[in-house]
Amino acid sequence: MTLTEQLMQTLAADESEMLAIRRHLHAHPEISFHEKQTAAYIKQYYAALNVPVTPCGEGYGMYVDIQGGQPGPTLALRADFDALAIQEDNDLSFKSQNPGVMHACGHDAHTAYLLVLAKELIKIKAKLAGTIRIIHQPAEEVSPGGAKGMVAAGVLEGVNNVLGVHVMSSMPTGLIGYHTGATQTGRANFTDTIIGKGGHASMPHLSNDAIVAGSYLVTALQTIVSRRVDPFDTASVTIGSFDGAGSFNAIKQDVVLKGDVRMMKETTRKTIRQQIVTMNQGLETMFGVKTKLDYDDNYPVLMNDATLTENAMAAIKAANIPEIKAIKDTGVQDPSEDFAYFAQKVPSSFFYIGCQLPDGSNHPHHSPDFMMDEDAILIAAKAVGAAALGYLQSESTTR
Amino acid sequence: MTLTEQLMQTLAADESEMLAIRRHLHAHPEISFHEKQTAAYIKQYYAALNVPVTPCGEGYGMYVDIQGGQPGPTLALRADFDALAIQEDNDLSFKSQNPGVMHACGHDAHTAYLLVLAKELIKIKAKLAGTIRIIHQPAEEVSPGGAKGMVAAGVLEGVNNVLGVHVMSSMPTGLIGYHTGATQTGRANFTDTIIGKGGHASMPHLSNDAIVAGSYLVTALQTIVSRRVDPFDTASVTIGSFDGAGSFNAIKQDVVLKGDVRMMKETTRKTIRQQIVTMNQGLETMFGVKTKLDYDDNYPVLMNDATLTENAMAAIKAANIPEIKAIKDTGVQDPSEDFAYFAQKVPSSFFYIGCQLPDGSNHPHHSPDFMMDEDAILIAAKAVGAAALGYLQSESTTR
Amino acid sequence: MTLTEQLMQTLAADESEMLAIRRHLHAHPEISFHEKQTAAYIKQYYAALNVPVTPCGEGYGMYVDIQGGQPGPTLALRADFDALAIQEDNDLSFKSQNPGVMHACGHDAHTAYLLVLAKELIKIKAKLAGTIRIIHQPAEEVSPGGAKGMVAAGVLEGVNNVLGVHVMSSMPTGLIGYHTGATQTGRANFTDTIIGKGGHASMPHLSNDAIVAGSYLVTALQTIVSRRVDPFDTASVTIGSFDGAGSFNAIKQDVVLKGDVRMMKETTRKTIRQQIVTMNQGLETMFGVKTKLDYDDNYPVLMNDATLTENAMAAIKAANIPEIKAIKDTGVQDPSEDFAYFAQKVPSSFFYIGCQLPDGSNHPHHSPDFMMDEDAILIAAKAVGAAALGYLQSESTTR
Amino acid sequence: MTLTEQLMQTLAADESEMLAIRRHLHAHPEISFHEKQTAAYIKQYYAALNVPVTPCGEGYGMYVDIQGGQPGPTLALRADFDALAIQEDNDLSFKSQNPGVMHACGHDAHTAYLLVLAKELIKIKAKLAGTIRIIHQPAEEVSPGGAKGMVAAGVLEGVNNVLGVHVMSSMPTGLIGYHTGATQTGRANFTDTIIGKGGHASMPHLSNDAIVAGSYLVTALQTIVSRRVDPFDTASVTIGSFDGAGSFNAIKQDVVLKGDVRMMKETTRKTIRQQIVTMNQGLETMFGVKTKLDYDDNYPVLMNDATLTENAMAAIKAANIPEIKAIKDTGVQDPSEDFAYFAQKVPSSFFYIGCQLPDGSNHPHHSPDFMMDEDAILIAAKAVGAAALGYLQSESTTR
Repeated sequence: MTLTEQLMQTLAADESEMLAIRRHLHAHPEISFHEKQTAAYIKQYYAALNVPVTPCGEGYGMYVDIQGGQPGPTLALRADFDALAIQEDNDLSFKSQNPGVMHACGHDAHTAYLLVLAKELIKIKAKLAGTIRIIHQPAEEVSPGGAKGMVAAGVLEGVNNVLGVHVMSSMPTGLIGYHTGATQTGRANFTDTIIGKGGHASMPHLSNDAIVAGSYLVTALQTIVSRRVDPFDTASVTIGSFDGAGSFNAIKQDVVLKGDVRMMKETTRKTIRQQIVTMNQGLETMFGVKTKLDYDDNYPVLMNDATLTENAMAAIKAANIPEIKAIKDTGVQDPSEDFAYFAQKVPSSFFYIGCQLPDGSNHPHHSPDFMMDEDAILIAAKAVGAAALGYLQSESTTR
Repeated sequence: MTLTEQLMQTLAADESEMLAIRRHLHAHPEISFHEKQTAAYIKQYYAALNVPVTPCGEGYGMYVDIQGGQPGPTLALRADFDALAIQEDNDLSFKSQNPGVMHACGHDAHTAYLLVLAKELIKIKAKLAGTIRIIHQPAEEVSPGGAKGMVAAGVLEGVNNVLGVHVMSSMPTGLIGYHTGATQTGRANFTDTIIGKGGHASMPHLSNDAIVAGSYLVTALQTIVSRRVDPFDTASVTIGSFDGAGSFNAIKQDVVLKGDVRMMKETTRKTIRQQIVTMNQGLETMFGVKTKLDYDDNYPVLMNDATLTENAMAAIKAANIPEIKAIKDTGVQDPSEDFAYFAQKVPSSFFYIGCQLPDGSNHPHHSPDFMMDEDAILIAAKAVGAAALGYLQSESTTR
Repeated sequence: MTLTEQLMQTLAADESEMLAIRRHLHAHPEISFHEKQTAAYIKQYYAALNVPVTPCGEGYGMYVDIQGGQPGPTLALRADFDALAIQEDNDLSFKSQNPGVMHACGHDAHTAYLLVLAKELIKIKAKLAGTIRIIHQPAEEVSPGGAKGMVAAGVLEGVNNVLGVHVMSSMPTGLIGYHTGATQTGRANFTDTIIGKGGHASMPHLSNDAIVAGSYLVTALQTIVSRRVDPFDTASVTIGSFDGAGSFNAIKQDVVLKGDVRMMKETTRKTIRQQIVTMNQGLETMFGVKTKLDYDDNYPVLMNDATLTENAMAAIKAANIPEIKAIKDTGVQDPSEDFAYFAQKVPSSFFYIGCQLPDGSNHPHHSPDFMMDEDAILIAAKAVGAAALGYLQSESTTR
Repeated sequence: MTLTEQLMQTLAADESEMLAIRRHLHAHPEISFHEKQTAAYIKQYYAALNVPVTPCGEGYGMYVDIQGGQPGPTLALRADFDALAIQEDNDLSFKSQNPGVMHACGHDAHTAYLLVLAKELIKIKAKLAGTIRIIHQPAEEVSPGGAKGMVAAGVLEGVNNVLGVHVMSSMPTGLIGYHTGATQTGRANFTDTIIGKGGHASMPHLSNDAIVAGSYLVTALQTIVSRRVDPFDTASVTIGSFDGAGSFNAIKQDVVLKGDVRMMKETTRKTIRQQIVTMNQGLETMFGVKTKLDYDDNYPVLMNDATLTENAMAAIKAANIPEIKAIKDTGVQDPSEDFAYFAQKVPSSFFYIGCQLPDGSNHPHHSPDFMMDEDAILIAAKAVGAAALGYLQSESTTR
């Protein structure tokens, strides 16, 4: 029996533990940057294994190193553990016990599979050629994200590559999805305050109407995507918030816009940012207002290394995991992901674990009725386990 | 000594009473349609005079008839008594005792002068040829206004004409201002809800961005004044509120606009309303949204009857009131005024009592530091008293 | 018989001469700044009277002085004589013989009445107290207008006041219309070239779409009237030409806009100009284009002197001219008029001679079917004659 | 020596003939749908070979069938032969002799290589298993394009597949570029007339400003790409012409817009068309104008069959053509191409022959200084020849 076959077996035997962990975390979700109890739970898990945990970054991030018996490269495996500010609307025995907070994106499953996978890898570490670093990352959901701080704190020092996964309720359970190159959008956000001059609605000439200036800006911003970006390229610019609430008979002094920008190339990121900056400058002159633009370039475009990804898929395929029905290129994905910070630093790969319910019903991520097929947790553990072992063997050999 | 000379004398002697009433009301302001204590105070004043008061309309409106000893026409004198939802920012012994409520428009002064003037007219009623109806009106500040309901309840039945005044902190104390014909703007207000479809900011094609549709509407609405209204005519269309607060990364499902419309002609009112209606219809098709337009045509254009106004000014001039330094046509005024409902029903005149502080400092109406020269109260009493006596004499004669 | 009565009689006898002159000019129209034959015709008329003519200004302008037998003030009477680039669409024996050129505004009638009136005033000049300067002005229709140059060349030196009239096909024949103060709009025109970068329609990111920038400018310009000008004030801003003709599949490099601005106050003129300038500056930044704004403040607001106008109307009324059925304040008029340059220099008055056809049919000025009731020509001569004599008598007396 | 090796040799020997043909055509360009002399020249070429030519379609299109000695599939080879309305700005001995017309896209080279290739294929036809149809297509440059009519006239009856090439001055000579699936944009064009009501610039309320309505439409159209199309999808909407030329002082009655639409999916084509239609409907209501939209869905998205393309590339590679330095996927291309009509009907492949000058200088297609490296002509002949022979062998075998 190969090491991989052995790992697949032990993971299968651990499935009930994975479910127990996932359900515990699901019942006790914590929002990004406030995952105190979650982090304590993870630490306690490793403490029970007598494995030291290294805190990393200013939040609740940490990592665990599994040093193999033989020399070899270092591969990091990353799972995130934060929840969302959403009130759960599911009827589950392990429903969220924290009002207004919910694991509506599956990070509970990510953490569950990785803890158990780590436990099993620790058991067989003598046979590994190289090191596996288990990264438990906080705050994926909220800018600036937990990854950025962990990278800055050195979590990737000595690490050659990183693997990560996301469960996907839009993909059938049993499917492993992947894509190489630019795979998930990069993102920027901005807050734009437009300041005119308030006054009586019947005397517009004595005021400077911020709602009018803001509305013209919104219409002008449409031209960034329609005229400034290559039609073959990807971009979106959304004003998600136009806060100009006031009264009927007064001209509004100021409005606050909140914007969201997505792109698949860092050059496009620069183009859009520059356009938003100059459009604000132009607006000031055109309408005599002041603008205050607070622009936050956050998550990078997620770039999956082609070789690493293809090797991972090959290793998963070679493992003949019975629960995995298909492995395919699922193309680009709209949402942004701060795993991209790891991928910016070292060649990395982020792939997808289908988790749609057997009845095919629609439970989108970030919705109050997000639900997943829990079979996906074991699949994640096996897929990442197979990829990790495949990596260490192959990388060790080629060195 | 003529009756007018006699009235001027007794009013002058009553000045301290007027101030006391005004200061009491100023200290106890009540917002529109909630003037319970104020109305009770007024009723008590008349009760002390043994004069019956007739409630009128669904709010706290009332009137008092002063029937002269000889037959003649009926002239109504109107004062409003509501306050504003403003926190007073003045340091006065009689500062508002009601948090967040303030007599910031001078309706306290209007009520003070009219109560005392009524008292003196009651004393001399045997000598009057005709009837004077004293109208105490609630809720001038807030649509639909108190006047409309009182008119509907019959307050003008048998009334030939109405006189009213407003103290004006933008005009020097000692000035009586007037204008004939269209004098203060008419008004409409509307609430416009634009309903698109919410969604994730990175997937605009699956949503329908209500902020974008709303912004285009705001820019299109500018053409009503710029292209649809005769440049020689008066109009303003203001979106005073654009309530589209949301989050960075979600496309906004709906926004609510609040609008204010001003005009000096009822035909212009119709043109603008029709434009706003059809622009909303066009927006629905153009952007695939739904709109819900709640349009409220409220205060009419205030039309001052030329003859009545000129006669009133002549009577005031003839009374040789020493505190009055000038009487002049002060032209059109931006704000709207629900006295216009009276003027719509019978020929009426609404004129202005300068009340600027002696130092010329700026204390605009509806501001937290609104202040008036209290000398204006006696001036108002004398001016309206002289105009009323002049009216009864002149109208009786010409019948 | 008074001098006025005598003048009225001789003018009445001259009616057929006036018609002959008008019809000759109507058949031979010349466009603004190119009125060579028209000017020669006028000179020849005076030459036949042995009266010297003084050329004035760089165009075909000229004047004739009629010095009275007694000292007195100098009153100028002005008529314009240019035609329009319009193809006449009337069936008249004296229809325009010059293709594409037409007296479609009545300046032929202005010149006809004034020539004959001048002739009669010359005959009685010994009896006049003061001087009458007859001004024949070219090029009223086209900026910069003929008046400006004549004023610069000194045509008003020694002139105390100016009178002028316009026939009005929108007013019934027999009506004399007038207004005092601001009476006709002032005007500005501008040419605005917006320069982007051309390119292939399928590659907008490599170009800079001038049509898009120009369209946003047009929408933004609407806010000048809707938000920057007092609703009680008058203004219009029109883009009359958006020249962006190109092909389907190329992005347009540049577009040329032509704009027209109207106002009734010189302060409003400044506000609008400044807004157009800064909006262009803002557009450059906002859309990365270059703009070239050529702004021409031309005709001033026409200000009629109240006393001069009222005196003129009184003199016309006193003359009991049977053809004049009514004299009334006809209010403000939309079009601009370069008589305003005279009025800027000395107190002046410009009034209206109704010339609607008896059947009330609609023949608007500047239309190919403009037609006038020729009875208006004698009425113009009599009205201006009466006003001029009244002026000299009254002004001489009051000196 | 294989048949392919033999063909490569004879083609190499024919290079000077190809150059002569290309230069003759270059000197005598004719615009789309008017290629009378060009068609005569082609017919004469085949007449000299005693090969019958079949006219096809309403223009100057034609085809020649080369029936092999053995049964097999039918492969069509297509070249276009129209020129552009551009004045050549090159200094060449064979410069265009037709003023204002130029082979600025390389269709002269397409025709030159294909005529000579046809000649050589005719010579060896006995050895071919299947039929090769040589298609000479007119009018590729101008909608509706020559391909559509030829397809309608049956040019593809009995044809299994089509191959075509385009020389590309943006790719180095020696490069064969290809892409599979959606490869060149589809296109639509529209003419949009917006009809308001003309009038005097000073009286906007009596008119309906078509320039204002048109400008708002242009700004609204930006939202199609920015909000209605998936950011991962390709689309452009360009208004290439805004014909609203007029005068300063008149409000424009109507404007004519010309639009260009590009996309890579037929579903996107439908979305955009529907948006443009409904935006025009909405504009009518919103601004009270009439619109007349003439919408022309023309060139489809060019879809390259993957197998056919890969086989063609494999055959070219196998031919070991020394002039070909690289064969690679050059990705999607912005311009549209009416070869897409063939590809819509039968599986087809359209690929690229680099023709950049050796000095790397920039001579873009459709520019007056378009120039190509004539070495590309022989390369085209060899590449298409190799692909054709490879096709017949492989397709015959697999049947």
